[in-house]
Amino acid sequence: MDSDFETTLTLPAVDHVARRQRVQAALDAKTKPLGALGRLESLALQLAVALGTDHPGLHAPQLVVFAADHGIAARGVSAYPAEVTRQMVLNFLAGGAAVSALARQHGLVLTVADCGVAAEFEPHPMLVPLKVPGAERGTADASGGPAMSDMQCRTAILHGRRLVAALPGNVLLLGEMGIANTSAAALLMARLTGEPLEVCTGRGTGLDDAGLAAKRAVLAEALVANAQATQPLQALAALGGLEIATMVGAVQQAAASGRVIVVDGFITTAAVAVAAALQPAVLGHCIFAHRSQETGHSRWLKHLDVRALLDLDLRLGEGSGAALAWPLLESACRVLAEMATFASAGVSQRTP
Amino acid sequence: MDSDFETTLTLPAVDHVARRQRVQAALDAKTKPLGALGRLESLALQLAVALGTDHPGLHAPQLVVFAADHGIAARGVSAYPAEVTRQMVLNFLAGGAAVSALARQHGLVLTVADCGVAAEFEPHPMLVPLKVPGAERGTADASGGPAMSDMQCRTAILHGRRLVAALPGNVLLLGEMGIANTSAAALLMARLTGEPLEVCTGRGTGLDDAGLAAKRAVLAEALVANAQATQPLQALAALGGLEIATMVGAVQQAAASGRVIVVDGFITTAAVAVAAALQPAVLGHCIFAHRSQETGHSRWLKHLDVRALLDLDLRLGEGSGAALAWPLLESACRVLAEMATFASAGVSQRTP
Repeated sequence: MDSDFETTLTLPAVDHVARRQRVQAALDAKTKPLGALGRLESLALQLAVALGTDHPGLHAPQLVVFAADHGIAARGVSAYPAEVTRQMVLNFLAGGAAVSALARQHGLVLTVADCGVAAEFEPHPMLVPLKVPGAERGTADASGGPAMSDMQCRTAILHGRRLVAALPGNVLLLGEMGIANTSAAALLMARLTGEPLEVCTGRGTGLDDAGLAAKRAVLAEALVANAQATQPLQALAALGGLEIATMVGAVQQAAASGRVIVVDGFITTAAVAVAAALQPAVLGHCIFAHRSQETGHSRWLKHLDVRALLDLDLRLGEGSGAALAWPLLESACRVLAEMATFASAGVSQRTP
Repeated sequence: MDSDFETTLTLPAVDHVARRQRVQAALDAKTKPLGALGRLESLALQLAVALGTDHPGLHAPQLVVFAADHGIAARGVSAYPAEVTRQMVLNFLAGGAAVSALARQHGLVLTVADCGVAAEFEPHPMLVPLKVPGAERGTADASGGPAMSDMQCRTAILHGRRLVAALPGNVLLLGEMGIANTSAAALLMARLTGEPLEVCTGRGTGLDDAGLAAKRAVLAEALVANAQATQPLQALAALGGLEIATMVGAVQQAAASGRVIVVDGFITTAAVAVAAALQPAVLGHCIFAHRSQETGHSRWLKHLDVRALLDLDLRLGEGSGAALAWPLLESACRVLAEMATFASAGVSQRTP
């Protein structure tokens, strides 16, 4: 498998410039002052370009929660015990999590991908088993060496691609669950951006000051133990997580199939950052839903040169921020599709 | 009528402290790290307090666009001709405006109140005639004296109270339309906050630099011409607009009847600021939907010591920002009502 693994997928070719001009002209003809809908207008433009149509519409939105466990959790880097990953998967399946309520509100189809949770689940219609051979119960402890082998990482990426290829609709909303996965994301941020661990490491689910200091010390060990992993895919395998690697593949496939990707918080940004390091054009398909309160997220968004839609001090993950931003995407499509023009409504243009 | 006019209405008595404690405890029991839903949690708390229940739910949301014309428009303070107020009212009734599309998206009942548009409209099921005797075609030019008489202003306030008293549901979303009404709002801001006109005056629907300078000069004349109007109700009559005065009454009635009020941008903030100057407790019922790009709005929100939910560079009015923020209110209610608790879902609490 290693030999025929494609690092990136071919993205659809689009004449961005011409499409932007046409959609901007359509927005400018609507009954509102030029640009008065602000970032809703830029969102409409991005959706048109990402979906490859002057008349963007969103269909059958899929919110996937990518779940996995992390060997580094054994080092006490999280405020919660590792068993919470399994328990929260069951909570998603039972419909009791925050993202469950938000997905119901907005008609988002919720799927949970078991990318390597340390548990055996009964079959469930919402659950997709995507365990990776040799890493069925999660990654190895990155503070002592690579979290995954290169082969395991590539298998996870392929899983993510296949999952998205089989999903209907033209929107993928990213969610995740995995105790200690802010550690994996912080390590990836440090390696990919060169920022110091102080900037990349936050309190996750709620570490106190002592817990945060201990987490940083463990992450410093992990960076030393994996000093050789400097390229994006190497870093993903050595420092990342199975849910993050699976999301990298999901992002690649979603972009390649001309879909819109709604990015949630710090962990999902890690997956997008790896995919963008391999192929910057995937960013054109990504809507960043919100700026997380987790330390590092703001700076990472700046590195990626993107601005998030919402700023609500969220730090939950699960795709909760992606779900909260979802109606704004629908609004952008609606104003473009439904608003009258100055000509059709008989409204006077501005005074010359 | 003048003699029996009540400046404020009685607000429902609530034990805020006890309710906040109970609702916060309910939020803390949900399957998420403490506080991880950020401002969605504070929103749930505010909704519970404003609606007077530990189990807030939102019913039959009403978006009212308060429309009127402004005598000061004749001084060229807007980029658009005054006839656009009438044309946009027809556009609302025909369903072609931005707020029309957004209200449809979210199931908000849209009503247009004619508080003094310089036009005679045919009867329409969405249109409520609220013209004020002697000001049927809008206010007088505030740059030469009071925009309204005290009696006209009080009539408009009473109209707003009666309108809301007759509306179903427990949520009022504020919208407005009126060419030159950023001028009226800027004048009110200057008078109520003491900020200089440079801080209060913006480009409205899109003035260029010369237009903005000319607008500021006209507004300076209006402040001088109405120097005697220092109290909130006097300032409202002298410097405000019929749609703003009607909204003041609407805000008072909505708060008095224990409803939630969703405030849009700069103009609707002017109405809330007047109501809050008369009775600060109305602010507890107000959710500020977004921070407008209009100069002055950020500073005004700071004066009111409130933070808006969205920051999307909007500057359209109509209630478009209120409609865009609406699903966040529903989300806040849903997480409180629908999420499982640690106990019910069998999820482990944080490590001691």
